[in-house]
Amino acid sequence: MARKATIVGGGVIGGGWAARFLLNGWDVAVFDPDPEAARKINAVLANARLALPALSDVPMPPEGRLSFADTMAEAVEGSEYVQESVSERIELKHKVYAQLQQANPGVLIGSSTSGFKASDLQIGSPAPQNIIVAHPFNPVYLLPLSEISGSEKNTEATVQRTAQIMKDIGMFPLVIRKEIDAFIGNRFLEAVWREALWMLKDGVATTEEIDEAIRMGFGLRWGQMGLFETYRIAGGEAGMRHFMAQFGPALKWPWTKLMDVPEFNDELVDLVANQSDAQSGMYGIRELERIRDQNLVGFLRALKERNWGAGKVLREHDEARAALFHEGLDQGPKAEPLTLAHLQVLPGWIDYNGHMTESRYYFCNSEVADAFLRLIGAGMDYVEAGHSYYSAETHIRHLGEAKLGDRLTGTLQIISADEKRFRSFVRIMKGEELVATIEQLCLHVDMKAGRTVAAAPGVYAKLKAIADAHAELPLPQGAGRAIGQKKG
Amino acid sequence: MARKATIVGGGVIGGGWAARFLLNGWDVAVFDPDPEAARKINAVLANARLALPALSDVPMPPEGRLSFADTMAEAVEGSEYVQESVSERIELKHKVYAQLQQANPGVLIGSSTSGFKASDLQIGSPAPQNIIVAHPFNPVYLLPLSEISGSEKNTEATVQRTAQIMKDIGMFPLVIRKEIDAFIGNRFLEAVWREALWMLKDGVATTEEIDEAIRMGFGLRWGQMGLFETYRIAGGEAGMRHFMAQFGPALKWPWTKLMDVPEFNDELVDLVANQSDAQSGMYGIRELERIRDQNLVGFLRALKERNWGAGKVLREHDEARAALFHEGLDQGPKAEPLTLAHLQVLPGWIDYNGHMTESRYYFCNSEVADAFLRLIGAGMDYVEAGHSYYSAETHIRHLGEAKLGDRLTGTLQIISADEKRFRSFVRIMKGEELVATIEQLCLHVDMKAGRTVAAAPGVYAKLKAIADAHAELPLPQGAGRAIGQKKG
Repeated sequence: MARKATIVGGGVIGGGWAARFLLNGWDVAVFDPDPEAARKINAVLANARLALPALSDVPMPPEGRLSFADTMAEAVEGSEYVQESVSERIELKHKVYAQLQQANPGVLIGSSTSGFKASDLQIGSPAPQNIIVAHPFNPVYLLPLSEISGSEKNTEATVQRTAQIMKDIGMFPLVIRKEIDAFIGNRFLEAVWREALWMLKDGVATTEEIDEAIRMGFGLRWGQMGLFETYRIAGGEAGMRHFMAQFGPALKWPWTKLMDVPEFNDELVDLVANQSDAQSGMYGIRELERIRDQNLVGFLRALKERNWGAGKVLREHDEARAALFHEGLDQGPKAEPLTLAHLQVLPGWIDYNGHMTESRYYFCNSEVADAFLRLIGAGMDYVEAGHSYYSAETHIRHLGEAKLGDRLTGTLQIISADEKRFRSFVRIMKGEELVATIEQLCLHVDMKAGRTVAAAPGVYAKLKAIADAHAELPLPQGAGRAIGQKKG
Repeated sequence: MARKATIVGGGVIGGGWAARFLLNGWDVAVFDPDPEAARKINAVLANARLALPALSDVPMPPEGRLSFADTMAEAVEGSEYVQESVSERIELKHKVYAQLQQANPGVLIGSSTSGFKASDLQIGSPAPQNIIVAHPFNPVYLLPLSEISGSEKNTEATVQRTAQIMKDIGMFPLVIRKEIDAFIGNRFLEAVWREALWMLKDGVATTEEIDEAIRMGFGLRWGQMGLFETYRIAGGEAGMRHFMAQFGPALKWPWTKLMDVPEFNDELVDLVANQSDAQSGMYGIRELERIRDQNLVGFLRALKERNWGAGKVLREHDEARAALFHEGLDQGPKAEPLTLAHLQVLPGWIDYNGHMTESRYYFCNSEVADAFLRLIGAGMDYVEAGHSYYSAETHIRHLGEAKLGDRLTGTLQIISADEKRFRSFVRIMKGEELVATIEQLCLHVDMKAGRTVAAAPGVYAKLKAIADAHAELPLPQGAGRAIGQKKG
């Protein structure tokens, strides 16, 4: 049975949380008196469906059930976790917690607050230990960071349980050691925000120029290494100490106006708003959101390929789910192609024609082949032990088109096999439609010696059993073709 | 004849400038009394060669000539532009400018200074109008930003000339409207730096936790949209005004300690340096630099695919150079395969055998094919107009192994072509070793009608010219093979 999360407050942040839980297979009950809540949440969810799956290399679990509750009691019933994202009014938050804890004593409550400390949030609660800060960053369904901040009233177990829930939905829980207002991220944002407002006010730069100064320069550094690791490099071979010696004195220079705060008045608001319109007014907000999401998907995939930073978080989340996916592949050999992979065409698989990019067909074949190798006992462990099947030759026929979101099935038929090699024929199906076939010759190699050798008896026995069963099947149409050869 | 730039000061920054000019085809003369200068610059250049070309989709120009001069006069002789990157001592900079301007009156001098204003730099110069700030961000060979800041002594023409030189080497010149210390980028870095030092000092977070708070969250946002465009989205449909109304009051909250500066003493240095060692000490600086560069290449390529932010700069730089490349081809293609892609095997391309995963060979082919299509005028714009080449059939032979970090070259030979199709043969080379061949039949389709049609005359003319030239080449060994067919 699916786990259940409760979302109180259905704005951009609440909607982002709802999307993250739903797409990770949790049921989600939303409470928000705003009559627009359902529309808003579904808008965020639609964006999330376009973006989050593009980060996953194992199929997403079936989406959870989304429901909207009329009362907080109904929303929290049977719920394992509550994420509170109401507006930043402490008395409102206290009222919400009171109702939640009355309806479901012992439920764990995480708050999206940008600045209140856990000890502020816990005031007046009968069970303060179950209230904690879990502060995310927009878009919640893509950015991994969740700042976990508790007070001395929270037990270590509560902190760890909250952190584990964040991991379960693919986030990176950062447990803050000391209670401070605004935690870590927002303190930096606040500092930069003040400096930026001064620059606008003083006419030094426009909003657009300031954004360019960030995204053309250090913003690109911070997205993958942050501040200190970047400066460590700037220090050169001598590292951080050298950097400090070199730049420490700058602390004394008049390089910031942060000793003071600009007056917040209509004039300042107009200045910022008008410049922002001039800069980005040509895009609607939804459009900007999709552009942002696709950029973030690009960054995150780049980091995932390099197994670095946020990309490492994505890999670990995949691995945790991959285990489940690979169960239940063990089928007895019949005279029919083996169905070995179920895939969905992800946004990241699409080329500028709007079709699944061609190399992904080969990727699908690899998924099928890997599943087959695991099936005959030639998986990771076998490779670790020094033997493996290498592809020698591959022939791909593109017969149809797969588009975003299409669900594909991969079947494998053994055309021939002996101790040292097998010839496989993989069909990539979209429902009943054959979109591609991949024929492949694989050789069994001793990786150390780097030459073809006979497979282990146990492996070959399994392979042969399947090959014998498949021998009754007709040679697939298109097998043995060469490029440029006439059809049929 | 190649344009010449002079680099005065050969540290990390000077070296980064040298690499950018050289890889963009400029000759570079370096002056730096440090006997280690040549070694340091070549180390930076080695990193740059691994990274910058990976951002280009048109062949890089032939690398310029690098020389090391014994005197400043020799270094600046015949030079069009000087980039000064000596240490931040105003009297030293003044001395450098005096010698440069004496040896080459009228040469344009850009300074890499992090904080001095142009009017400070110009003091005492006979030709102050030729001295201007061109402030880059490390790594200079990858990050596009160059802050151009002049005084009222600089003419608009000088500012524009400096900006154009930055564009010529693929950078994004940001002209600052008013003279201020530290320009724009460093003011933000300084603000964040101060806040970060406070957190360390107060034991709120470690250097690693602070870096995670940045790179798992807002750092990813800033790399592609900066501050204001991000907040505009946070404002939702109501946009920037709503955001200001919502978060403006925060200015009054105690969310930063920036009213004060932590005392800079050995204790603080040790704290930072020791934590930084614990965080990143397992990587050497050069190693960290390469990791950073590969991450940045990933970000920048992701943005380039989406034609956004820094990616837009890369595209425009390509387009400016593509013209030249096409001219070369219009002068008549030669009877040799076209070299169309330079790739490096990234960590994410590796399978559990430790080799480049097989579908990546097809990916490499796609990179080569896309470059070819752009070359014959069938790139994105052509596709948006409704026509495209689809792959019908692909035959891949795996002949060697590519491992992590290997640099691969992709060449393409046209075997046959007519109005409606072409047959290509791509070789993936690791140095002189052939690791894979990909033979492919591509059909020219009307995407709306979904059927094969003749290509646009302009496209076919380019294709035919190359096909005719390649007709003189022998049929590649292995072309026209079918799976399972005997060797030879």
